[in-house]
Amino acid sequence: MDESAQKQHQWIEASYRLRAENLSQAQALAKAIAYEQTVELPPEQITDPRLLRDVVAQVKAVEQDRDEPGAWRAEIHYNADLANQQLSQLFNLVYANVSMYFGVRLMDLVLPPDLLRCFTGPRFGIEGLRQLLNVPRRPLLCTVVKPRGLQLDQMTRLLTSFVDGGGDIIKDDQNLFDLKMSAFEERVGRCAEALDTANLRRGDQPCLYFPHLAGPDEELVERARIIRSFGLKGALFCPLILGLDRSRRLAQESGLALMAHPAYTGSYTNRRHDGIEHGVLMGTFFRLMGADIVAATGFGGRFAYTQRQCDGMVAAMTQPLGDLAPALPAPAGGMYLDGITRLVERYGKDLMMLVGGDLLGRSCGVTDSTQAFVSTLEQA
Amino acid sequence: MDESAQKQHQWIEASYRLRAENLSQAQALAKAIAYEQTVELPPEQITDPRLLRDVVAQVKAVEQDRDEPGAWRAEIHYNADLANQQLSQLFNLVYANVSMYFGVRLMDLVLPPDLLRCFTGPRFGIEGLRQLLNVPRRPLLCTVVKPRGLQLDQMTRLLTSFVDGGGDIIKDDQNLFDLKMSAFEERVGRCAEALDTANLRRGDQPCLYFPHLAGPDEELVERARIIRSFGLKGALFCPLILGLDRSRRLAQESGLALMAHPAYTGSYTNRRHDGIEHGVLMGTFFRLMGADIVAATGFGGRFAYTQRQCDGMVAAMTQPLGDLAPALPAPAGGMYLDGITRLVERYGKDLMMLVGGDLLGRSCGVTDSTQAFVSTLEQA
Repeated sequence: MDESAQKQHQWIEASYRLRAENLSQAQALAKAIAYEQTVELPPEQITDPRLLRDVVAQVKAVEQDRDEPGAWRAEIHYNADLANQQLSQLFNLVYANVSMYFGVRLMDLVLPPDLLRCFTGPRFGIEGLRQLLNVPRRPLLCTVVKPRGLQLDQMTRLLTSFVDGGGDIIKDDQNLFDLKMSAFEERVGRCAEALDTANLRRGDQPCLYFPHLAGPDEELVERARIIRSFGLKGALFCPLILGLDRSRRLAQESGLALMAHPAYTGSYTNRRHDGIEHGVLMGTFFRLMGADIVAATGFGGRFAYTQRQCDGMVAAMTQPLGDLAPALPAPAGGMYLDGITRLVERYGKDLMMLVGGDLLGRSCGVTDSTQAFVSTLEQA
Repeated sequence: MDESAQKQHQWIEASYRLRAENLSQAQALAKAIAYEQTVELPPEQITDPRLLRDVVAQVKAVEQDRDEPGAWRAEIHYNADLANQQLSQLFNLVYANVSMYFGVRLMDLVLPPDLLRCFTGPRFGIEGLRQLLNVPRRPLLCTVVKPRGLQLDQMTRLLTSFVDGGGDIIKDDQNLFDLKMSAFEERVGRCAEALDTANLRRGDQPCLYFPHLAGPDEELVERARIIRSFGLKGALFCPLILGLDRSRRLAQESGLALMAHPAYTGSYTNRRHDGIEHGVLMGTFFRLMGADIVAATGFGGRFAYTQRQCDGMVAAMTQPLGDLAPALPAPAGGMYLDGITRLVERYGKDLMMLVGGDLLGRSCGVTDSTQAFVSTLEQA
């Protein structure tokens, strides 16, 4: 840390929702957070003016939460140097220990320019993905290779049908997982071959296939290489299982587009007074990690979030964030044909509908149902 | 997956707490979990008998939760093959998607022998740590290099004082973090030197120093090597930031003892009807990862859990789990001298008290307060 008294710090502005009986209790909790997350010692033990100036976070305001009756909001500023220009440490700094408090939720996070410049963010982003797909405007369609347990020829038929129906991206289910690297190579290779063959019939708008990048940590680099070796452009990651910065590096070094799966996000997002707000986790943090696509549940279906939470997710994925490209929001988890128009009306065309059951289960077959979805997306 | 109809599966037995209005609603939720976590398609779309037999999880029982009035318990069994002999996939299988449900908590997890044999677990465990320290019986004492912002000579003085006072392990605060690898090497090297010098005065009961293993994913292997190069035996990891399996591998390949920090555990554990029970996450999963020591808040102090939750944590860290060594429970987070006797009475002597503020902040100085703590531990 720069020890010059002249140094002007840049600040990370974090906003927390607090559960507290009254203002003075909320103020005490805010102060506890400011010390917990930086020096992790009681205030009376920190007397060195240098630590108070450069290390202890600063409570800038505590007031009633306008969005949550009876709750409070604390604005806490951290010296950006404490994030060490790095994703794991930033993630650690703004919430890790207070996760063990009761009634503290990280609601918003504003990062200063010098810190944002330490992150390269999404390699492709929305524009890059649209270029790969050669689909400049309409909302996109993604489906899932599932269920786990399909035979390889069932998988390749599913892929082929989706490509023939005009779909954009087909990804592995996050439960799809090959024990042996050789089985992974065979499966991904066969799927890539089926994709390429079917794509020949599509002309200049290829469908992309994103296998699930998973396995023992020792094999992840090699599995990413295998994916690339078949000419595939992206992969599905579970960042909260692999690690945020581990995922960032795997995508960055492999050159693969990163589709982030929401596995375990609910443990962070699903309570009003605890955890991390949807947009901060799946928007800000996942973009800093480099997610090109964020599969996000909650837009109806079997995991319903509030309108405000969904709005916040889409905003955080797409709004300006330094020079980082926007991530493509992919509403997922019980998406139905009927819901598409409403989502596009609200969020615009830079969306990818991630549809599993409602597309795969129709009696007309996958090709026809894919066509029906794409046609709805074209008209949306 | 083995396709032989003859095959006898081994089963992962998972127990979930469900929030539901009545039995039939609880049964429906249990069935939804069984499908969600395996085939991720609605039951009416799964008709293949092979999938029903080998892939879809089986709901074995749904009954009232004896520990939580108004809640339900579902016993769900997963074919152990679905865990692919691997930590990330097991973690994915038993909870990842249902984290996005409301009112589902993973309460217990019993793993079959063949699956347990895929994990090496703690390298040192309680016995191995006691051998390194040459302290066969009494409860152990750990403190923390903090606050962040200390000058290097303040750190080495702190280390020296703790060693002179007879402490067992001193670890970095999880906020301690060096931007540059050269600064990390200098800091850890100087601390190791101070440790070695002071240890010479101790004879055959050395104090150990565990630096925080953190940084960009690209640097973790090299930083682990640096730690080892100074003769240090262990490091502090934040597994829910680095990734569980990433941490497992880093510890395994480096040979370092793994002290797991509870950063972010609260997001999983702190609600009664959601997330993962303390013992399952910090006992079972952290042991499978290879944690030799688990720093665990909740035993009083500023993060208070219930007696039952604490009992469950200690039990899961130490009870038989295949051939895996037990992990050393390290109660942490606002631990005071006064509380030691009570904890030792309840949990026995295989504990490590992790004391920060109450040891570092005493007016008598660190050496004397360390002596007071060790003496209390000897009498406990």
